[in-house]
Amino acid sequence: MTTHCFQPKVYHSTLGQYAPVLTIQPGDQVETITVDAHGLDLNGIEVSQGSNPQTGPFYINGAEPGDMLVMHLERIVPNRSYGWTSNSLAGNVVDPDYVMELYHRPKGEPWQPDLWDIDTQAGTARLREPVQKLGNITLPLDPMLGCFGVAPYGGQSISTATSGTHGGNMDYRGFRAGATAYFPVFVPGALLFLGDGHAVQGDGEIAGTGIEVSMEVTFSVELVKNKIIGWPRGENDACIFTTGNARPLDQALQHATTEMMRWLQSDYGLDARGAGLLLGQVVEYEVGNIFDPAYTMICKIAKNWIK
Amino acid sequence: MTTHCFQPKVYHSTLGQYAPVLTIQPGDQVETITVDAHGLDLNGIEVSQGSNPQTGPFYINGAEPGDMLVMHLERIVPNRSYGWTSNSLAGNVVDPDYVMELYHRPKGEPWQPDLWDIDTQAGTARLREPVQKLGNITLPLDPMLGCFGVAPYGGQSISTATSGTHGGNMDYRGFRAGATAYFPVFVPGALLFLGDGHAVQGDGEIAGTGIEVSMEVTFSVELVKNKIIGWPRGENDACIFTTGNARPLDQALQHATTEMMRWLQSDYGLDARGAGLLLGQVVEYEVGNIFDPAYTMICKIAKNWIK
Amino acid sequence: MTTHCFQPKVYHSTLGQYAPVLTIQPGDQVETITVDAHGLDLNGIEVSQGSNPQTGPFYINGAEPGDMLVMHLERIVPNRSYGWTSNSLAGNVVDPDYVMELYHRPKGEPWQPDLWDIDTQAGTARLREPVQKLGNITLPLDPMLGCFGVAPYGGQSISTATSGTHGGNMDYRGFRAGATAYFPVFVPGALLFLGDGHAVQGDGEIAGTGIEVSMEVTFSVELVKNKIIGWPRGENDACIFTTGNARPLDQALQHATTEMMRWLQSDYGLDARGAGLLLGQVVEYEVGNIFDPAYTMICKIAKNWIK
Amino acid sequence: MTTHCFQPKVYHSTLGQYAPVLTIQPGDQVETITVDAHGLDLNGIEVSQGSNPQTGPFYINGAEPGDMLVMHLERIVPNRSYGWTSNSLAGNVVDPDYVMELYHRPKGEPWQPDLWDIDTQAGTARLREPVQKLGNITLPLDPMLGCFGVAPYGGQSISTATSGTHGGNMDYRGFRAGATAYFPVFVPGALLFLGDGHAVQGDGEIAGTGIEVSMEVTFSVELVKNKIIGWPRGENDACIFTTGNARPLDQALQHATTEMMRWLQSDYGLDARGAGLLLGQVVEYEVGNIFDPAYTMICKIAKNWIK
Repeated sequence: MTTHCFQPKVYHSTLGQYAPVLTIQPGDQVETITVDAHGLDLNGIEVSQGSNPQTGPFYINGAEPGDMLVMHLERIVPNRSYGWTSNSLAGNVVDPDYVMELYHRPKGEPWQPDLWDIDTQAGTARLREPVQKLGNITLPLDPMLGCFGVAPYGGQSISTATSGTHGGNMDYRGFRAGATAYFPVFVPGALLFLGDGHAVQGDGEIAGTGIEVSMEVTFSVELVKNKIIGWPRGENDACIFTTGNARPLDQALQHATTEMMRWLQSDYGLDARGAGLLLGQVVEYEVGNIFDPAYTMICKIAKNWIK
Repeated sequence: MTTHCFQPKVYHSTLGQYAPVLTIQPGDQVETITVDAHGLDLNGIEVSQGSNPQTGPFYINGAEPGDMLVMHLERIVPNRSYGWTSNSLAGNVVDPDYVMELYHRPKGEPWQPDLWDIDTQAGTARLREPVQKLGNITLPLDPMLGCFGVAPYGGQSISTATSGTHGGNMDYRGFRAGATAYFPVFVPGALLFLGDGHAVQGDGEIAGTGIEVSMEVTFSVELVKNKIIGWPRGENDACIFTTGNARPLDQALQHATTEMMRWLQSDYGLDARGAGLLLGQVVEYEVGNIFDPAYTMICKIAKNWIK
Repeated sequence: MTTHCFQPKVYHSTLGQYAPVLTIQPGDQVETITVDAHGLDLNGIEVSQGSNPQTGPFYINGAEPGDMLVMHLERIVPNRSYGWTSNSLAGNVVDPDYVMELYHRPKGEPWQPDLWDIDTQAGTARLREPVQKLGNITLPLDPMLGCFGVAPYGGQSISTATSGTHGGNMDYRGFRAGATAYFPVFVPGALLFLGDGHAVQGDGEIAGTGIEVSMEVTFSVELVKNKIIGWPRGENDACIFTTGNARPLDQALQHATTEMMRWLQSDYGLDARGAGLLLGQVVEYEVGNIFDPAYTMICKIAKNWIK
Repeated sequence: MTTHCFQPKVYHSTLGQYAPVLTIQPGDQVETITVDAHGLDLNGIEVSQGSNPQTGPFYINGAEPGDMLVMHLERIVPNRSYGWTSNSLAGNVVDPDYVMELYHRPKGEPWQPDLWDIDTQAGTARLREPVQKLGNITLPLDPMLGCFGVAPYGGQSISTATSGTHGGNMDYRGFRAGATAYFPVFVPGALLFLGDGHAVQGDGEIAGTGIEVSMEVTFSVELVKNKIIGWPRGENDACIFTTGNARPLDQALQHATTEMMRWLQSDYGLDARGAGLLLGQVVEYEVGNIFDPAYTMICKIAKNWIK
């Protein structure tokens, strides 16, 4: 296995057909870094503008439309001693009549995030300025990638502020180290992007941010030729899962469930009746992003039911 | 503590202002039984028609509109050796273009459920007729109440096929023994109903059924005077949670999140800023029913963050 | 034709199986009055509490579950010289981030409606107190019934604040004099209710009110035996239409379109292919209520395409 | 006024930052042609692949981000003697349980459209092959542009199969000759695209197509400097309107209503209270595309209320 140590110089705020920053082979491993959602790097220097700037794209040799890209998330570790969060919940996650009851920074006061001190040794993120009864609340680190994926279909370039069949800003907590992600390949080389690391995140990213931080990321890729999938998929030791990205959440759920039905039938030997019968009684759903133009729903099943 | 052993003689398929079957005191315990979603009792005899027939209503002495009813789910155990499931997923949980790919029982063939043998000693439900690769798949029991709640506001009687601020057909797997449910009181006596037991259920009840079975249920009630809540709430050893019941799932999530924001502020000493900051990084969502006219979303937070 | 002049003494804020106030025959005509959405009658006296109090129910002799009730809206005329509107748009019809930009009555100031002087001779409603650049804006009367329908299925009693297969608070401007409404019959006698008159209303009732006013209403009924319909339908000189009541608006639209597909096939001699081909190029949609728990969408087709 | 006669040689299936095909001045007029949704030109020759291929982009001299582009649709006339439609309604516009009842072309039979003979003299489109009771149904022409707009924000390239703040595949029947469209300018030159002409279309484009045809289009442009708008707007002799593009339809409606509230306040001298009061009683909604990933809702108000 070849390991590439890649130091990014440019970042992209759309996933599209940019010039590759590195060409790698299936089986290769890449050690790289990502900047945070505001383009701040490991030193807190703004090295990119725009939202969720992405490292990449990486060109995977041999990848062609109709293939499936396999990406093993091997290591995701904050490389900076602080992260930040927004101050308030998103208006769209509460009742319209309750929007005015949310905390809003006083008019005229410039936006500034809440800061969190990150201690990767201790495995914690600690709120820097005490907030009321919470004090300097300390949360366990659970680092993940909020936004990553491949160049979309049809020659599109899609903002890192949203998601689709190509992945993107899914903000699913299950995309942590140890997970494998699967993406459809839409363009030659697949063109893999990654960024938007979160040290900690609640389901849904309902504040519009996790604890945003720059990361060291190690991943490796594989390629499955001539395997068409409809939506990003994933896997960890315990389960397989599919993602659906759309609004409303109902439609994201429909996409994810449909993709799981297809997967169970194509790879696990079940027919339509068996797959439906099984899912009906053992399916689990998890909520990814519910802040962006497209929401993310996860459809999950424990591996012990399908071995 | 008084324990009432109550043997139902009538069942209701709407939650409304029916004559109470029993009057109990706050603090009392009730041991009773429920029939399955098709009104079949412990002997498999159809004792009620309609969907999700309910045991009750129980009149809680002293309960007045504006109070909060506390219901401890102490024991939920199948009292029959078999349960049943529908054969196919609901059309609304997959993409519209995929509906035709679901399993559909051949036209003209009468509907009949898949049967499961329930062994409460072993703690398992075993598919009676082997289905393809699944064989006689055996699932661990996780008994729960699919539909329960109180008489709704405004003099309404609402079908057990849906849900609302009064509870109803929420099909949330967390309503298992050991959990406590909280309901708003809308009418004198609260009028508590329960039924629709599931031996096992996947998230969302996406087949339209769990493993439907009659149950022995033990619960006790308490009353909190002059405490107005907006939506059913719940609690177990590890967490507190709120439910929102509506379509689309986005709105159910808004209701549940709003209710949690209110709860954190009224009972846990947080203000709007602290509650939002906390939820943003530690909230968890779970999916209840996504089959009915109203879907159910759960907003959950671990107790260790709010002690 | 028998004409009944009926003076209501009680009003109901749910549609359910109340004791009939009058029994009528198919073919009969009824002249009656309705109070406004706050229960204020022709003299501005509050004669009922609750929202959208309904006149009725009327028992239609011979109506049985599985029949279709036909209701001709013959005359709808304000019987009071003023109506009222709420002051502000509903939060759910604008972007969540815009809710705070809507007009909100200053905190602590008691709610009071905007008043409109109604002149049925001139056919106008004139804003009583001038508002900024609008002055005393004067709108043409277009009286309609916001909430009417029959007792729901399954023994339910459903709030007049929402809608369903039984009709209810649909707030569709097309339910004006000259229109005919069709309802499924769910209970013996159908039990017809009506109320919530609007002198004027924008699409969607996005302020939560039209110009609310008490009305004189004349209607007549007919009965079609053994004709099952899924959702309220309607007709006027120019077109036929169906209503779907649900959230989100997408689902209301699905219900309405499905009902129209059924109607075109059952009554107009089209098959699935022809009905789809026709609807695809000539369908019109209109928006009913988008304020309530259930929204209303209208699917409409001009009669000249289906004669 | 300069008139440019522009004959396209390339077409694009995303709206993005392509090399301009022509640079024009504010005030200029352009006479050009568009191909149909499948890239067939006036001779029925496939000159482009992909969906809804666009003529353009046109670079408007002086247009900068933060400006508003004005596009007058002056003439839209089919330039071919036939159009085509799909055979069946989209699955997402009917109830999930009804999808199987829609007409579906027999399995194995290759897709082919229904053809319509277009007579621009008579102003009609006539179904070529009689379909059941419809026979050779003949519809009045009402030519419009289904997909047009500008390069999107943030460096995106977005498929012509969907829509957004930049316009795109909105399929609103009101975009016919005589209407003016307003777009936000996101990139230098605005980069205006147009295509996807429909000779006839029902609301919602619920068959997934209108009567698809190539067109002669004449338009002119103007530029309003330093005028930021959030969503495409429009105007005709009788009314002004805004578009919202999103799923679900509820959110599209929120976007459109919010944009109208902003417009009434910025350009028509109303404040938040007046704008809300007026819209509440006179707003009209119309349905654009309800087939694509993003739906389109129109919020409209007659000009006589705001002069």
